[in-house]
Order: sequence, then structure tokens, then C-alpha cells
Amino acid sequence: MHFVGAVIHTGASMSLRKLFSIRGMVLPRTCKQLGNRLYLHNNVSYTHRTHTCGELRETDIGKTVQLSGWLQYHRMGGLFLILRDWQGLVQCVVSQGKESLLSLAKDLNYETVVEVHGKVHARPEGQENKTLETGMIEVHVEDIKILNNSIKDLPFDIREFHDVKESLRMEYRYLDLRTKRLQRNMRLRSSMIMKMREFLCNKHGFVDVETPTLFRRTPGGAKEFIVPSRLPGKFYSLPQSPQQFKQLLMVGGIDRYFQVAKCYRDEGAKPERQPEFTQLDIEMSFVEMEGIEFLIEDLLHFSWPEDLEGRPETPFPRLTYEQAMRWYGTDKPDTRFDMKLMDVTKCLHDSGVQQFDRLSAESSIVAFRVPKGADHMSLKNVQTLKETALKIDHGKNKINIIDVRVGQNGEWKSSISKHIKPDSRERLAAATHLQSGDILFFAAGQGIKHNEILGRLRLECAHHLETQGIQVRNKDKFNFLWVQDFPLFLPKDDGDGLESAHHPFTAPRLEDLDLLKTHPEKVHGQHYDLVLNGNEVGGGSIRIHNADLQRYILQDILKEDPSELKHLLEALSMGCPPHGGIALGLDRLFACLCNCDTIRDVIAFPKSSDGKDLMSQAPSPVSKADLERYHIQIKTESEK
Amino acid sequence: MHFVGAVIHTGASMSLRKLFSIRGMVLPRTCKQLGNRLYLHNNVSYTHRTHTCGELRETDIGKTVQLSGWLQYHRMGGLFLILRDWQGLVQCVVSQGKESLLSLAKDLNYETVVEVHGKVHARPEGQENKTLETGMIEVHVEDIKILNNSIKDLPFDIREFHDVKESLRMEYRYLDLRTKRLQRNMRLRSSMIMKMREFLCNKHGFVDVETPTLFRRTPGGAKEFIVPSRLPGKFYSLPQSPQQFKQLLMVGGIDRYFQVAKCYRDEGAKPERQPEFTQLDIEMSFVEMEGIEFLIEDLLHFSWPEDLEGRPETPFPRLTYEQAMRWYGTDKPDTRFDMKLMDVTKCLHDSGVQQFDRLSAESSIVAFRVPKGADHMSLKNVQTLKETALKIDHGKNKINIIDVRVGQNGEWKSSISKHIKPDSRERLAAATHLQSGDILFFAAGQGIKHNEILGRLRLECAHHLETQGIQVRNKDKFNFLWVQDFPLFLPKDDGDGLESAHHPFTAPRLEDLDLLKTHPEKVHGQHYDLVLNGNEVGGGSIRIHNADLQRYILQDILKEDPSELKHLLEALSMGCPPHGGIALGLDRLFACLCNCDTIRDVIAFPKSSDGKDLMSQAPSPVSKADLERYHIQIKTESEK
Repeated sequence: MHFVGAVIHTGASMSLRKLFSIRGMVLPRTCKQLGNRLYLHNNVSYTHRTHTCGELRETDIGKTVQLSGWLQYHRMGGLFLILRDWQGLVQCVVSQGKESLLSLAKDLNYETVVEVHGKVHARPEGQENKTLETGMIEVHVEDIKILNNSIKDLPFDIREFHDVKESLRMEYRYLDLRTKRLQRNMRLRSSMIMKMREFLCNKHGFVDVETPTLFRRTPGGAKEFIVPSRLPGKFYSLPQSPQQFKQLLMVGGIDRYFQVAKCYRDEGAKPERQPEFTQLDIEMSFVEMEGIEFLIEDLLHFSWPEDLEGRPETPFPRLTYEQAMRWYGTDKPDTRFDMKLMDVTKCLHDSGVQQFDRLSAESSIVAFRVPKGADHMSLKNVQTLKETALKIDHGKNKINIIDVRVGQNGEWKSSISKHIKPDSRERLAAATHLQSGDILFFAAGQGIKHNEILGRLRLECAHHLETQGIQVRNKDKFNFLWVQDFPLFLPKDDGDGLESAHHPFTAPRLEDLDLLKTHPEKVHGQHYDLVLNGNEVGGGSIRIHNADLQRYILQDILKEDPSELKHLLEALSMGCPPHGGIALGLDRLFACLCNCDTIRDVIAFPKSSDGKDLMSQAPSPVSKADLERYHIQIKTESEK
Repeated sequence: MHFVGAVIHTGASMSLRKLFSIRGMVLPRTCKQLGNRLYLHNNVSYTHRTHTCGELRETDIGKTVQLSGWLQYHRMGGLFLILRDWQGLVQCVVSQGKESLLSLAKDLNYETVVEVHGKVHARPEGQENKTLETGMIEVHVEDIKILNNSIKDLPFDIREFHDVKESLRMEYRYLDLRTKRLQRNMRLRSSMIMKMREFLCNKHGFVDVETPTLFRRTPGGAKEFIVPSRLPGKFYSLPQSPQQFKQLLMVGGIDRYFQVAKCYRDEGAKPERQPEFTQLDIEMSFVEMEGIEFLIEDLLHFSWPEDLEGRPETPFPRLTYEQAMRWYGTDKPDTRFDMKLMDVTKCLHDSGVQQFDRLSAESSIVAFRVPKGADHMSLKNVQTLKETALKIDHGKNKINIIDVRVGQNGEWKSSISKHIKPDSRERLAAATHLQSGDILFFAAGQGIKHNEILGRLRLECAHHLETQGIQVRNKDKFNFLWVQDFPLFLPKDDGDGLESAHHPFTAPRLEDLDLLKTHPEKVHGQHYDLVLNGNEVGGGSIRIHNADLQRYILQDILKEDPSELKHLLEALSMGCPPHGGIALGLDRLFACLCNCDTIRDVIAFPKSSDGKDLMSQAPSPVSKADLERYHIQIKTESEK
């Protein structure tokens, strides 16, 4: 019989026969009665293992064990077998006089799955391995069963996956998942989400409700995947969030809702974006902004992984949108390091520098200082960093970044050092606490574009210094903060009219209500973003619960057709409680917590940046019959 | 200012101003420091409530409370307000001398959302309401805030939703959700799933892993929705289950996986089917059939809702497929009542009844007895029930159901009573314990079709008797059982070749392995179904972990192109542990537990039986631009 793994695993066939022999309503023994064989602790219960490979310690010495795992490698002609499972490695030694096992073992391919029967012994004097958690013991092998052979040459080695290129790791994701790193990421993700559920469900009476993912197209939802239905010309849409459903649940009296929700967004090929992603979705009735913020602070504090540094202190700092832009040039500031932006307009009044003195009254001059920057950034470095930062403006606003390098004797190297008047120079140096060895960057302009550019430059500098081996940001530090007080509307790109800064359901600040009629652009929203180390990891708002207000904003301000949202407007008019909520982007959150450069490393089966599954080659062509069923056909280029 | 609800909810604006006034990195007070206002117990924490409406009891007498809820109704010109939230009703009485409140209250529409400030008092002697959990107390109202008005005429009354037709309840699902019944269903579902998670995650070390829903089309996956991508002619597919991913996770060393997984199935318009549904998806390595079965038994026992009768005893009974068909004529028997099928072939040997005596050697005669059936089923009833049962055969096998009515004096009324020989008649009566007042049904044929027909008739009879007020099945009884030992393959409908009875990844019984080459149709699979009260609520199997075996079954037996599953076959060859799993259909399970006739009553936002969302009118047409983006166009009938 040549189906190797299948038959060699005879342990199974034995007890299956037993089970099959049961007839009629005769009851088999329960797991408990089966005792050690089936009903063991936590990680091996219901299986044919007594322990995991990685958990054995000196306290287990003398125990007879049955282990199952992957052969990491073997030494000395199969005498030493290093077995691996998710909990770690264990050394197995083939016992004296087991020549048959030895000859079996020595020919095993790495990553073959084996079952080992044996006894735990202390390692011989001097052979302990302090670097290994199981390093004080070894298992003396009485028997080995090959559960399933592995082929000889795997696409890459499980032990050193680091230098494998990502596309190959994604094509053979199931091999990559065996690595210590991904095992940790997956398990940390699972257990932290579990703690979040305990906090919400068990401690605070939230109800976990699943909402549909086949829904109606939302007006202007250009980023929503469509799903053809069997009704000709009719499509479902995969929602970007359960926003409407969570609000309808509030109307429905599910006054505390949460869901770990799968969401969809089609952004074509965008790095660091996945077509499907997961958010912790929360909504509450009879709540205000601070209620939601405190809830999330306590949630994160409660669910923080035991084995992770930096459990956040609550409450988190708050910044207004305006402050964030003024001090960091971004609405998601990384506060793990300083180098804050400063308004130095006054210092440079009548400075002698033409480009400053010519500035209009609406303009401001913003600066930030890089301590010891001159020591670690060459002129060429500075040039490159400036260019990168200026990219975000696409040269639209003709903004110019000026740098001042301060030499060891305090002398300035800068394009403006010849022109700037001494008093301006002193005022600037004093205001920015300029030291020798520093670099000072500044830029001038109207509005906030020059803040954004310097904000970007600030991050580029931090990154550059870190590549130079200088610690700017502490990797074990997790700086959460709230950014709030955003404008409710923004001018459309085409300048014609306003659009929602976040979404049309966000409630205006109540003290701004009167401005809605007169100066909608001045209205602030009851919106809040949760920021972690420069990443937006969450966002939410208090919603509009009043039908008239919602209709007014849709119709009169956003110029949208309210009939598209008829069902929501009706709902608001039938007894909708005041409510608000938030959604945390779990992929991004865990990427930060696991210190990953990409969210792909905290997702079991991620797609490539162009939306492909490299393992199965999705998306793929479908049959004509499939298209017929959905009344669609493929449009060739020529037809366009 | 005319945005009613919005401004009247001034409590909010007050504390928002406070929050907005925070500047810089100044920290607000934490919830704890805010004391009672924000940080109360479980169900009202972080909100502006001190209690829920439904939780107040005599022990709360004397407390000052702040409640928020829906106005169920008012009596005596607004003097008595009955407030509702998910926990129940509470009577509020406008205090003496609050004429302004009285005039406000008397004009409030039902379902208006109000906030009530007041004090809990014992109800006056003789005015207690024992039928109401809060019936011993009432709240004396000091102040009322209208949080949001409701329109006067709602589509239906929250109090008596029963007689509302379902399509209307689904169009205004957010109103239906307010009903006691749906609140209970949603909350029972949430809390039981939470307990399942605790059992798997916290007690048995399972890892919750999210798998993609945008995947590659599976070969012949005619029931999979397709999702057009931006790559011309390329489509994702919404999987019917995470089957492939869960197996790949086993290969990846996530040796205990679970997920509450959203799955998709496009069956067009089929009653009792939803295009998206939820299953508890489980997979384990190094496990056998009984390991999975015991796990599930313990899981259900552990997570059974506290307030629900009938927590199941473990272990559950086992039936083989063959036994289930023989005794119940179905592979998902309802064992809450007897009326088992019996093989009465021997009794009717040389019976004198032509149609029996002419039967071939392969035929069998099967019968079941309906105790006191004659007393409760008219001749017409019997005729109708027989016709319904025979429908499942579509007259293909020309099967005929014979009934015998036993009169008070034991006399038979039947088409065969004239012909049947006395001894056959006695043998039959003895074998079936026939009593006067009973009805005996029987049918003859080859194979099992006549069993299936009688199995269906058995259920129809039970249902009919129940409509006659006779308790056949105990609604509080939950009969779980395992059906196993299914054939691995079934002949295709077109009779040409074999197809998988469940799916191509199911492992054959190891003792049947040799039959694979010689008599594949005789091979049994390591598959198991979990049945509850006649419903299939779960199914799973031990999987094939051997690449050669999997390839042989795909290629040589099922005649499928193995290259379609290249990634899976590769994975099996690179160190795949023996593994197996199961999926529980949660919608069906909760429908049974909540005693609902339809799964729609345990889903927050179900679709109609033809796949429509009656609330939002999904699916709906999409724009030309949307179609362009995905390189598709709608195919009109004429083009077909």
C-alpha cells in the first residue's frame, strides 16, 4: 500500500475501528473517562499528544511523553532529532539499541511530521543549552512514527526566513506561518482580540452582532467592490464598514454593539492597503465623545498582551486637529520624539531676508530644530530629505525649505546667513534654542501646506538619524493620543462646494450648529481619531441622530440625493437615540504592537500590494456559465 | 433653532465644551475619577444613565436615577409614562406640581426617546404589578428631556409585532429589533458565541485566525458569488467555507484553529437559505474523529445559555448513516419521538398481497406505526400527508404507501385487508405492536427511496398530530446526535462516475483504503454530521493529509484537474500533519435554541428568501463608471 502517511498513521485506524464498531444508541466513553489519552490540559486536549514539544522543562523529568511535531533537523546520523512545534524546540535522542529507529531517523527529510514516544531525561552534565527553553532536558526516544513525509527541497528554510523575499514567502505562506515570528504575531492577535471581547461582552454588556457584507451600494462609494446578483443588472456591494448597520442597531435598541468586522475597500494597487481588512467596530447609545474615548482607553489597557512592554497609561493625551497641524504638521503625530514645529514669524519680522520680508500678512514662517543634525546629516543627505518632503506638495505651492547648519563655534552655514539681520538671527536662535551642531529647517507660506511639508521632513530626519544608529524613537514605547476637533467639511478638490471631512453621519459640535446655515466651512465635527506612534489606528464620532439635521446636511450642504439614504433617514425619525461609536483598525494596530513594517505580517493570508493571492493565484478567470448566471460579460479594451 | 433632538440634548454640549476647552497635552479626568456619572456597572458604563429601565427593583427604592429609553405608552394624560429599554419596562410618574412636564409628556408620541431624572419609590399599596419585573416600584419624575422625537404613525406597533407580516418587519428591521423576542435572540446568540470562544481560546488553546473572503474560484464552485477585480477578466470568489485555508493553517503549524466565519453561498431564491451565513469553523492537528466529536460535545455543554432548558448530556448518541436511513429514513433524524421505521419484509413473505409477493429479492418492505393515528387523522388527512411525502420521489420509483387503520375492535381498514393472509397479518401486527386506534404505514421498494419517503411521512404525521394539539415532540428537548460512517463517494446524478458525498478532502476510513483501487463506491469516509432535533447543525471530517492520496482521489476517482488545487497538493507534500475539523452552522443552531421557525429570526439583518435586503433595496443597479472600473458590462436578454 503506497499512500505513505495515511497508513503509517495506524494509531488512527485502531481507535477508529473501535468507534465504528459502536452500534445503535450505545454510548462511547466520554473524553473525561478516556483520561490522559484524550483529555489533557489546554494545548493538547482531545489529541494524541501528552505535551507540546516546546513546553517540556526540568519538572517533567521522568515523565513518559508522546510528542508530535516537525523535524527541524537531525544530528549525528539521526541520533539527535530536533523536534519543533509552535511552542518551541525539543531535543530527542534515539535510545541505545534502537538501530531500526536510527536508520529510519537518519534519512528523514527536514519538516517531516513525526510522532515520538519516549521519556524525559535531564541532559548529561555540560550538555545543557541555556539558549533553549527546553535546554535542560532531552527526550529519550522509544518509538518514532512518521505521520507525513516532507519533500527534500523546500522553497525556503523555516529556520532563516528573514532573507527570503516576500513574494516567495507569500506564495508558500503555509511555510512562512511555521516561523517563530508569524506564530507569535498570529497568536498575539488572537489572544488580544479575545481580551477585547471579554472587556466589551463580559465586563460592559456589549452585544456582538454580525452585520451583512452583501449590501446596497452607498452613494459615491467608488471604493466598494461590487458583487453581481442573479437579478439582471442588480449588484450587491461589499461595504467599507458597517456604519449604517451599527446606527440602525442603535435605532433597534441594541444600545451597546460591537463586532470584529471584516471590511472591504478597493483601492486598486496601493501599498500597505489590503482589499479586505478587519476593524473592531463599536457603537453606543446615550453616549458622548469622552464616553467613547474613555471606553477605548480602558479597553486597550485591559487587553494589552501580558508579554508586551509598554501597556499604555490612561487617559491618553488629547490634541485638537489645529494643534496637531501646528506642532507636527500632520493629524497623526508621532510623539515619541520632539523636534516640534514652531511659528517663528515674529522672530523674522523685518529680517533682511527678502523672501520673508515680502511675505503677505496671511503667511507664517514655521521652523523645527534637529539636535546634532549637522553632525549626522551631510549636505547631500539634507538635500535628499528636503526633496522627499517637498514631494507631498507636487511643487504646487512653490514652497522652499531653508536649512541652517550651526557649526562648532556657532557659525551659520545657510543660504540666508549673509542677508539675515543679527537681531532676527538672535531672536530665531533664542526661540528655537539653537545649539552648535544642530540643523534648523524652516519654511514659509499661507495655510498649512508648509507645516505639512516640515512635518514630513521631521519624520524623514528621525528616520535618517536612526539609520545612522542614533535612537530617536523608542521601539518599546506606545504613544497613544486622541486628535479631535476636526472641521466637519472640507472644500472639494475641484473647489466647487463642500464634502464631509470624514462621513456625512458625523454630528457637528453643538455650539457650532448655528454656523451650519451661515458658515458651514467653520463648523467642527464631533469626530475623534486614535493615533499610535504616528499611525491612525482608530476613528469615530458622535453621529447625527436627528432626521432633519441629517437631511439638511445631505441635501443642502453636500448636495447629495437624500433618497439614496431613505432607509436611514426614516430610521432616525422613528425613535433614534443619541449615539456614537468608533472603529479600530486591527491590522494596523497589531502591526504596531508586533513591531512589523507591514500589516501583511499580522494577517494569516495577506494579498500582495496589487491585490493578488500569490498562493492560489486569485483573482482568476471564471467560466462563461458563471458570467451568464450573473448576466454580465467581460468588456474588452476595444469596446471601451 | 429647529433641529429638535439635537439641541434639546444639551447635556452633551455642556461637557463637550468642557472637552474642547482642553488645550495642549493637558489631561482630562479619567472615567474612574468621573465617578458615578460615567463609570457605572456593566450595562450603563461610560454613558449618561445610572440604570437601565428594566433592572430597577425594590432594592433600588430611594435611589435617584437617570434613565434613558423609549416611550412605550403613557396613561392619564401623561401622568404615567411607561419607559422601555432592552431589559424591560418601568413605570414613571410625573411628580406633583410639575405641570410643565405633564403638558410636555401628554403630547409625546410613542417610541419617542426620552431621558428621565427621578427617584425610585415603592408603588402605592394595591397598585403593584406582579406580571412586570419592575412592578413593585415606580420612578417619580423630577425632569424629562426629549432626546429624539418619534413620528406619530409607525409602520407597526412594537408591542404586538406578531401579526405583522414578515416583509414589513424586514423593511423596518430596526423597529422589529426593539421587540422582546429579537432582543433575546440577538443577545443569546452573542453571549453563547462568547462562551464558545472562551472554551476554545481560554480553556483549550485554540487560535482565532481570520481567513480571506476574497479568494480563488474553487473548481466547479457554481454556488460561489464572484467579485470582479480591476484586472480585466479576473474575478475573486466569495468562498462557501474556509476549508482550504483551515487546512493550510494546519500545514502552517497553527495546530488548533477556530474562527466564527462568514461564509457565502449563492443558491438563488431558496427558502431558509441566506446568501451569507455564519459558521463556527474549527480545525485541529494530530486528532481523530472522536477527538473532534468530544470537543464539540464539551463545547456545547460548556457554552449552553444559563437561562435555557435542556443543556445537553455528553457524550451524544452515535448513529451510522446506514442506521439513520434504516430507522428514520433520513441522515438527520429527529429522535425526540419514536415511530421508527421497521423492516417487515419477513412478516409479509407469501402474504397473499400480490404487490408484495411479486417483489424481487433485492426489495424490502418498511413500515412505521402512528400510535392513536386513526383517532386523529381522517382518511383525507392521511391522503394529503401521503401525497406530501411522495413528492420527494417525484413519482420516479412508482412507490406506493399503504396504510392500515386499526378500528376499536382491532378490525383493519386498508386496501390490503381483503387479500392479506391471517398469519402474515398476525406477524405484522406482532412485529409492529399494532394497537386499536393506530395507523400503520408501509412501503416497498429497492434501495432506500421508500425509507426516505416513509421518513418524510413520519415527520409529516408528527407535525399533523401537533396541529391537533397532541404533544409529539417536547419543544424544550434538544436531542443532539452524531451521524457518521457515510459513503465517501456517491454516483453522479447523470450516473456517469462518482462524486464526493461531502468534499474531496475527506479522508477514507483507513480500513477501506484498499477498496479505493477496487471498489471506490464501497469506501466509507471519516465524516461526521452533528444533528439536532432533525436539523443538520454541523459537519466535519478527518482530512486527507497525504499528497499522493489526495491527488489519486481528485484525478483517478473524481476525474478532476488536480492543477486547480496545485497549492493545496504542494502544501500536503511539505510537512502536513494529520488533521481534521468541523463547522457548526450557527444560524441554524440558534434558530433551534431560540425555537424559531426561520433562521431569519436569529440574524440581525436577514435577506428575504429571494436574496433581497428589503430595508435598503439591495441588490441595486450600479453606475456605468463602476462597471467600467471592473471591465464588465450587463448582458441583456437579447444578447443571450
